[in-house]
Amino acid sequence: MHFASDNTAPVAPEIMAALAAANQGYATSYGDDQIMDRVRDQIRALFEAPNAAVYLVATGTAANALSLACHINPWQAVFCHRLSHAEVDECGAPEFFTNGAKLVVLDGENAKINPDNLRAALASIDATDPHVIQRGILTITQLTERGTAYSLNEIHALTTIARDDNMPSHLDGARFANALVHLGCTPAEMTWKSGIDVVSFGGTKNGLMGVEAVIMFNPDQAWEFELRRKRAGHLLSKHRFLSAQMGAYLTDNLWLDLAKRANDAAARLETALLSLPDTTLEFPRQGNMIFARFPRTAHRFAKAAGAEYDLYFGQSMQGPDHELLGARMVTSWSTSQRDIDGFVAILRG
Amino acid sequence: MHFASDNTAPVAPEIMAALAAANQGYATSYGDDQIMDRVRDQIRALFEAPNAAVYLVATGTAANALSLACHINPWQAVFCHRLSHAEVDECGAPEFFTNGAKLVVLDGENAKINPDNLRAALASIDATDPHVIQRGILTITQLTERGTAYSLNEIHALTTIARDDNMPSHLDGARFANALVHLGCTPAEMTWKSGIDVVSFGGTKNGLMGVEAVIMFNPDQAWEFELRRKRAGHLLSKHRFLSAQMGAYLTDNLWLDLAKRANDAAARLETALLSLPDTTLEFPRQGNMIFARFPRTAHRFAKAAGAEYDLYFGQSMQGPDHELLGARMVTSWSTSQRDIDGFVAILRG
Amino acid sequence: MHFASDNTAPVAPEIMAALAAANQGYATSYGDDQIMDRVRDQIRALFEAPNAAVYLVATGTAANALSLACHINPWQAVFCHRLSHAEVDECGAPEFFTNGAKLVVLDGENAKINPDNLRAALASIDATDPHVIQRGILTITQLTERGTAYSLNEIHALTTIARDDNMPSHLDGARFANALVHLGCTPAEMTWKSGIDVVSFGGTKNGLMGVEAVIMFNPDQAWEFELRRKRAGHLLSKHRFLSAQMGAYLTDNLWLDLAKRANDAAARLETALLSLPDTTLEFPRQGNMIFARFPRTAHRFAKAAGAEYDLYFGQSMQGPDHELLGARMVTSWSTSQRDIDGFVAILRG
Amino acid sequence: MHFASDNTAPVAPEIMAALAAANQGYATSYGDDQIMDRVRDQIRALFEAPNAAVYLVATGTAANALSLACHINPWQAVFCHRLSHAEVDECGAPEFFTNGAKLVVLDGENAKINPDNLRAALASIDATDPHVIQRGILTITQLTERGTAYSLNEIHALTTIARDDNMPSHLDGARFANALVHLGCTPAEMTWKSGIDVVSFGGTKNGLMGVEAVIMFNPDQAWEFELRRKRAGHLLSKHRFLSAQMGAYLTDNLWLDLAKRANDAAARLETALLSLPDTTLEFPRQGNMIFARFPRTAHRFAKAAGAEYDLYFGQSMQGPDHELLGARMVTSWSTSQRDIDGFVAILRG
Repeated sequence: MHFASDNTAPVAPEIMAALAAANQGYATSYGDDQIMDRVRDQIRALFEAPNAAVYLVATGTAANALSLACHINPWQAVFCHRLSHAEVDECGAPEFFTNGAKLVVLDGENAKINPDNLRAALASIDATDPHVIQRGILTITQLTERGTAYSLNEIHALTTIARDDNMPSHLDGARFANALVHLGCTPAEMTWKSGIDVVSFGGTKNGLMGVEAVIMFNPDQAWEFELRRKRAGHLLSKHRFLSAQMGAYLTDNLWLDLAKRANDAAARLETALLSLPDTTLEFPRQGNMIFARFPRTAHRFAKAAGAEYDLYFGQSMQGPDHELLGARMVTSWSTSQRDIDGFVAILRG
Repeated sequence: MHFASDNTAPVAPEIMAALAAANQGYATSYGDDQIMDRVRDQIRALFEAPNAAVYLVATGTAANALSLACHINPWQAVFCHRLSHAEVDECGAPEFFTNGAKLVVLDGENAKINPDNLRAALASIDATDPHVIQRGILTITQLTERGTAYSLNEIHALTTIARDDNMPSHLDGARFANALVHLGCTPAEMTWKSGIDVVSFGGTKNGLMGVEAVIMFNPDQAWEFELRRKRAGHLLSKHRFLSAQMGAYLTDNLWLDLAKRANDAAARLETALLSLPDTTLEFPRQGNMIFARFPRTAHRFAKAAGAEYDLYFGQSMQGPDHELLGARMVTSWSTSQRDIDGFVAILRG
Repeated sequence: MHFASDNTAPVAPEIMAALAAANQGYATSYGDDQIMDRVRDQIRALFEAPNAAVYLVATGTAANALSLACHINPWQAVFCHRLSHAEVDECGAPEFFTNGAKLVVLDGENAKINPDNLRAALASIDATDPHVIQRGILTITQLTERGTAYSLNEIHALTTIARDDNMPSHLDGARFANALVHLGCTPAEMTWKSGIDVVSFGGTKNGLMGVEAVIMFNPDQAWEFELRRKRAGHLLSKHRFLSAQMGAYLTDNLWLDLAKRANDAAARLETALLSLPDTTLEFPRQGNMIFARFPRTAHRFAKAAGAEYDLYFGQSMQGPDHELLGARMVTSWSTSQRDIDGFVAILRG
Repeated sequence: MHFASDNTAPVAPEIMAALAAANQGYATSYGDDQIMDRVRDQIRALFEAPNAAVYLVATGTAANALSLACHINPWQAVFCHRLSHAEVDECGAPEFFTNGAKLVVLDGENAKINPDNLRAALASIDATDPHVIQRGILTITQLTERGTAYSLNEIHALTTIARDDNMPSHLDGARFANALVHLGCTPAEMTWKSGIDVVSFGGTKNGLMGVEAVIMFNPDQAWEFELRRKRAGHLLSKHRFLSAQMGAYLTDNLWLDLAKRANDAAARLETALLSLPDTTLEFPRQGNMIFARFPRTAHRFAKAAGAEYDLYFGQSMQGPDHELLGARMVTSWSTSQRDIDGFVAILRG
């Protein structure tokens, strides 16, 4: 009953096999390996972006922070949702990598930035006034931190507002594949065709050991990225093992298959949860994350049985039995039907 | 004939097996995995340092820069050798992580800091003058960038000078194992017993896929390290795969065996090279790195045959046949006798 | 009719005289002048703080940013009001000087932080979680950016919350004197007796040419301040001219007299404004700032006559005559009755 | 007998008068004062640079650090002399303002960078290698820290080397006027006509209270400068008082007159010193700084009589009588003949 995070899941067997295969003989280090040449081509083809700059790093925080830093100056703003990973969960990595840019937090339902809020925030900035932080970059998360997905129209609306103020747009795709599978669109449609300029294309939460790609559709910042990556200690010497993971991930649609498994598991879990008394979803499920509320009694049963998932911030197991508490449950490619069934049976009491 | 770097070598099979073993089921993410608990104990025991703080990151640049940043302020100096990795090969990572500290470069034969130079540099700083950069930390590299090893006495002499000025000392141990095998001492002797406060304990160049440990014998900066690591994007979510590598590395003396193989290969290569006409070593070989000079003709043969190694900075294949050019050759745990024999045969012409 | 800012006012004649007097002969540079020795004593006596560290800089932004930087780490938060100068008007100086700390903005009526909001913000931070920005420092502004003053009780309530979480408290006193005159308390009461640890004690807006003192009641960060000040280019070589201004400012209660004049002028302006039809105050006037709303017609008269004051953000002179627009009017020690009378006569039409 | 520094001298009376004159009535704050409009025109005319961007700050460290930061990225190098103010006397301000750039120190006689050393340093950088700090900017000091002046040819030689590698060149002109008077050239000749792109045009050491101009001949970085200046707390609110100083400084050749007085005083001091037994100059005197060696006995006489000047680093008043010790003596516009005569009489014993 492992629903704490897709980060706790194992690595897909195809990826382990690719690592083993990449371990034959010698390879040029620091990103000049031949596997990377193929990965670059794979990603450019997949995203229909023949000129894109493509780099690999080992963590999502690095992918996000490097992407942002390559596109703004320290006196500029990063516009993000109040709940975004960059704002909440990276211990200030964007501020560190950008040398002190300001994150301007925006609200919006379902963890999605409301376009009116972005418009208002931008309008409040006087681009001729040296006393104020200047416009910088928009970043959105897909899936959001509450498991919802921006529609293509929603992405386009936000990036258009950004572009109208000459700002680029970044997409934090830690759960890119889960969102894509939900939307049923192409990678190009969910990114540059919707106005996205730079993507953190996540793999770690979807079955890799630890690889995220940064894809910049406009390669002007490519060299800056390489310098910032090295300077931040994020250029791996035995880079072939990042390349190998990403190469296998993109081969034979493995990445989509893994995401489908995770999303399907979440759908089944959702159905099962909604069959329980007093249980409701807090956000529409659109990928592999479920935010549900159910009575404290059920939580007690679950925790006693060793089920792994997160209570919401500030909630406590202490209190009246029937009070409803929110739970975040995340499925992964490896979530078993047995885990789902077992979990729901326990919640049922 | 792969002598470009120990970074180009494959991962040891025991490590690959450990990764596979670690991939069973679910594990808590972000460093709270059970394997890490064992690794911490292994390292504390190995270093005879029961209170040491122990962390893993994926690159040596991160290990070094985080170690330095945890011990100094931005207005302080890092005293390092002119040839040190921190000064030369990290694109300013120490400056980035420390928020702008100054690297004060010191000279010394065989890429080792001359104690007199350290003493003079420290003496030139007025600790009551706010106009000048203040004393910060000493960092030495073991093996050095020219393949030499500080003796225990040499380490102790430098750290004593640092300590007399209330400075901590860092050891960049990207090739820690190779140096240790050469010296035939214990990890404790090469570190805290010689006055070292914090170590980058390298594994990547010695058969791991990508793991370096940071060991702080005084754990006061432990929490700061955790925050800086996360903020720098160096806390891996699926951390168990770092832990598993390090765990296997330290099991059954694998780390020493791998280093011995590398050093032994270098010794055989050295002997063979010195049997060639007009060939001399530039630095004493004390680990797995050889710096030798031989005629351009021999280089031409070698390069034509596909041998991989680095010419020294600024040297060119263009020029008179008999001019002597310097070569850097690095062996690894996987260097084969066939590679050595083939290489020397080709050099012979 | 100069109500744009107290920054636009001239320097008080006593200050000009002090500058002339200080210009006799030679003086040790970089803060070691004899006048500074007296100023330090004056401030310590005035604040009843014999051990306080006292420094002078030329701008309020420097005073604030250096104060904050000396008390937090880059991974910590500065808790401030959404309207605070540090958040809104310093182009990210706090982020720059702190090497990327995060400003956590809090709401509260009358531009004063609501204690519940501070408490909630602090409670939301898990001090054992390296993924999140940690608690750092509280900063409040007195007078606030809307011209209101925290009562002593209000200051104490906020600093107590901060202290309960081991956080120091900073007071941005760009208009310290105006607030003090309003409250009728002592400098000690408005600062350390109310729990404030470090103060930006402003002089520039109250008749100086350009001097702000930083007063740290706990001198532990004194040396760090000196290094950060120099490193930021804020240690003036001919420092005696900062000292001389501050010395004269604190002599014979000049600083209080100047503030009284400004506050009194504001009180008279307030009375006159409230005698106009359709005119209301937006915030209680508690110092030398008035925020009033009156019809666009009156604004048109005023602007046509050359009156200087700021419309609120985003408001426009285009629009219906009778729509009420907000104006910020600031008086200073040099505001004349003629300016007030003339202004109100024009508004009257 | 005040030869410690031109920083210890008083402000010229014309400047004090200009401050008084500027103190009439109200003025727009934060650099938008009318005096600044005139100053900008004055400087553009003086430098024959009608498009130059011109800004004022209160310290030389700020002028230098902001100038450098506007022209390089954090992963780039500042090439400077080993003795330069930026390297030695600013507590790491360049590193702070540039967010961690590296100062590459170069040697050269008479505190002037040797062109061969610059060429070699640039040649050692591989502009395609992300592991190494990249080329950034050249900065030279005029007068140098040892009182010498680069000839126009020398400046041109260095800036040409820089330009050949696409690097801009900065001139730290803390003693710009003293050098110019020595060379007898125009400001344009000493700057952009010799390949300089950005200048710190000092005034403080030459009779101002505290003003340095930054002049960028290519105004592309003008807006960046304004933002960085504010962000660093270096935009003064009552900016008219910076403007007024600079305006008077440039009126009726005051700045040249003041420098001539200082240089002439130094020349007379030099002549007098060289008439003493056992006294030699260490560097050619080319402005208002003298570096001389004379016996410890004479130093003892001088110090006993209260003469103010600096011994060289590390030298001590303890020791044999006849040992020669180096002294740095700086004259200013206000150095009196009586001071010179008195000083030399005392040295004579």
